[in-house]
Amino acid sequence: MTATTPDGPESSNPTMPLAAAARVAARPLAALDTEARAALLEALAAALEDPHNRAQLAARNAEDLADAEAAQARGDLSQALVARLAIGPSKLAALSDGLRRLAHMPELLGRASLRRALDEGLELERVSCPLGVLGIVFEARPDAVPQITGLAFKSGNAVLLKGGREALRSNRALVAIIHAVLRTQGLDPACVTLLEDRAAFAHLLNCTRHVDLIVARGSGAFVQHVMDNTAIPVMGHAEGLCHLYLHADAAPDQAAAIAEDAKCSYPAACNAIETLLWHPDAELALSAVARRLLARGVGLRVDPATLALLSSLAPVEAGLIEAGLIEAGQIEAICDADDDEEYGDLTLSIRRVPSLDAALAHIAAHGSRHTEAIVCADADAGERFIAAVDAACVFVNASTRFADGYRFGLGAEVGVATGKLHARGPVGVEGLLTYRWLLRGTGQVSADYGPDKRPFLHRDLDLD
Amino acid sequence: MTATTPDGPESSNPTMPLAAAARVAARPLAALDTEARAALLEALAAALEDPHNRAQLAARNAEDLADAEAAQARGDLSQALVARLAIGPSKLAALSDGLRRLAHMPELLGRASLRRALDEGLELERVSCPLGVLGIVFEARPDAVPQITGLAFKSGNAVLLKGGREALRSNRALVAIIHAVLRTQGLDPACVTLLEDRAAFAHLLNCTRHVDLIVARGSGAFVQHVMDNTAIPVMGHAEGLCHLYLHADAAPDQAAAIAEDAKCSYPAACNAIETLLWHPDAELALSAVARRLLARGVGLRVDPATLALLSSLAPVEAGLIEAGLIEAGQIEAICDADDDEEYGDLTLSIRRVPSLDAALAHIAAHGSRHTEAIVCADADAGERFIAAVDAACVFVNASTRFADGYRFGLGAEVGVATGKLHARGPVGVEGLLTYRWLLRGTGQVSADYGPDKRPFLHRDLDLD
Repeated sequence: MTATTPDGPESSNPTMPLAAAARVAARPLAALDTEARAALLEALAAALEDPHNRAQLAARNAEDLADAEAAQARGDLSQALVARLAIGPSKLAALSDGLRRLAHMPELLGRASLRRALDEGLELERVSCPLGVLGIVFEARPDAVPQITGLAFKSGNAVLLKGGREALRSNRALVAIIHAVLRTQGLDPACVTLLEDRAAFAHLLNCTRHVDLIVARGSGAFVQHVMDNTAIPVMGHAEGLCHLYLHADAAPDQAAAIAEDAKCSYPAACNAIETLLWHPDAELALSAVARRLLARGVGLRVDPATLALLSSLAPVEAGLIEAGLIEAGQIEAICDADDDEEYGDLTLSIRRVPSLDAALAHIAAHGSRHTEAIVCADADAGERFIAAVDAACVFVNASTRFADGYRFGLGAEVGVATGKLHARGPVGVEGLLTYRWLLRGTGQVSADYGPDKRPFLHRDLDLD
Repeated sequence: MTATTPDGPESSNPTMPLAAAARVAARPLAALDTEARAALLEALAAALEDPHNRAQLAARNAEDLADAEAAQARGDLSQALVARLAIGPSKLAALSDGLRRLAHMPELLGRASLRRALDEGLELERVSCPLGVLGIVFEARPDAVPQITGLAFKSGNAVLLKGGREALRSNRALVAIIHAVLRTQGLDPACVTLLEDRAAFAHLLNCTRHVDLIVARGSGAFVQHVMDNTAIPVMGHAEGLCHLYLHADAAPDQAAAIAEDAKCSYPAACNAIETLLWHPDAELALSAVARRLLARGVGLRVDPATLALLSSLAPVEAGLIEAGLIEAGQIEAICDADDDEEYGDLTLSIRRVPSLDAALAHIAAHGSRHTEAIVCADADAGERFIAAVDAACVFVNASTRFADGYRFGLGAEVGVATGKLHARGPVGVEGLLTYRWLLRGTGQVSADYGPDKRPFLHRDLDLD
């Protein structure tokens, strides 16, 4: 953490009045009762289905898409980014569905997690409450706007949003719909504020007194940049260096299927694997993995033991390797730097390790504590792996790609946290809450209690 | 937060090998079963009762005390600090008692807080675990060493301790006792490491990869200094600016007793009040408070309305005020800076506010979100106060000084956190834990699930 950044005069920080307004707007939002909160989420779901709103949004989204496709034609924008920009009827239907599910999830605010009589007439409660004001920065994906807004409504937090600039017109249209919903529900539109450019977001990072949490989604380098430039707590994952370890008895089919999913289903995701480790007895499993990944065009960075195994594969494949793959660069020798590199593309480093313990040591030294997985037939090996790995997510015989709020059934995901404090791994609504200690007395003073004085009762009471 | 500090070569950071050893030592400590963990705490309790250990400790403590008394005679050390240095039989008995209570508290590690079938044969669990390695810096109070060690043992965390230098010989003797206990229980003494000087602690702040949490106790300025100089998360309270508000119907006796306790029982504490606000109808209550505090020698910084009321008190008191207190400086005019000052001594600022809402606005603007209290007869006013105040602790008709882990019945207190994330307010063992997501599958891959594919079950299972 750096020196606390003083908020400074509002005149020099154009975002600060917006953040201050969010702080004020957050109070009535936090105070909604369960029915009113559900009605707010239902109203937003309905607004995304309204034909007039859809027409407005479609027009703005078409403008964003046209610009993006032109940029893609010039080579300035990736196909994947352009695909994420589109927000058509099926995405909107899924968004409305998600908002209605959030509306009907149990109330999370105002719940007592502890209730204790310190003495007769002196009752302590620990009660959940919103964090207050969130700043969330995310990629050029306009569906994130209603998703994040839904999480903010459910958790009672006001939010300042900064999306990718390629989606600006779509995001503006979505926030206009959200503001209209807030007004019809008697709430302040300042509950949801769109920050339109990077400068506004940079100023938000200085609004220390008005913002309680920054959630940063994007590349590891970007998240680290955010963390380096604010005294506000940041939730995000600056790194996702995940391993898959094939134990001695790993079933080849399972290993191949899991490795393919973990590497190829979305290589840029933080929960994709970067390194595969294999036990000397797992030759068949490793061979099956290598065949599958080479066929999918994955580039392999391999240690000598792995190269030797690959070269001993069935003649036609060995011929392939010797004749083409090494020359073509699809198989390369691994170097030490590979152990710490998050490729984010169809590249995988592979090392043979002498034992499960050696795999654990490699993961402890190089893992980013995001998600680590083992493939094994022996349940004991799986439990040893689970016991020893210090990571947000530890998986046995399942793809690392399951590390995701939607797949975990958290309703929706704010992001994935690789820090250990507060929330860890995929973060849903609960990660946007904190608690307060409430004490209701009848005039008690602390000096009356203690050794040789009045004892505390400390009698736990039933929760609701 | 600052730029992440790279750990750098160990040779240039003499604390890093100690932190790395703590990381290794923490694993078997975390893996202890419930019985072994209780035995460890019981063994430490017994060791503090052992006559040989007590004699050793008494000799070292006498040396620390002699030096401290000499420093006090020279005016270099406060009476309060010298008093806190002593660790005699009654303190040791209380420490052993506390350790045995911790031993018998329910196990907190390995508890599942969520268990969910994502599909048949694909089960998710969220399970509590230690943070890993803690760095804790605290004041010159040797009893903190076994207290913190007990919390670390219970929570399965290794710890590096830095106490006040005045207690160094006592702390060394205590850590020697702790190391002997660790050895007899088959654990690595590196579970508990004493850092002997400020330089060693400064180096600890750079051990980003080996330390998971810094707990900083001490002055607000010191805690801020720690936060400003590390990329490791810091738990602590940089400020404790607490208010007491006397509502229109506050009972004078209750108001006087609570204000006296909240200001005078330990003025340097973070949960002592710095500012008293009073409703225009609370004249009797304010008068009772002022009489009590003036009699206790509290210096009052008052606004004109308060001064007018004090001057209208019964003649003899009014005479006192006019004749002596103002000239003597015990009553002074408040200035704006007083609203944001944590006096930490027998000084209190007092302002009349027109309403409960005005009190809430003042607290929102000037409070440090630590502990805020109201005195009121009307329960509705108390609930309005509770609903509106954003602070770790919000109290009705009770002294702010109850904001304390021991008084809350948390077993023991690591410190008080004024941040909103992770742990808030008094922090006990639970604040030293995090969780992991464990997923046990049978070869599942993420690409098989989703819209138009296999649906997730998301069926919650019973917790143990």
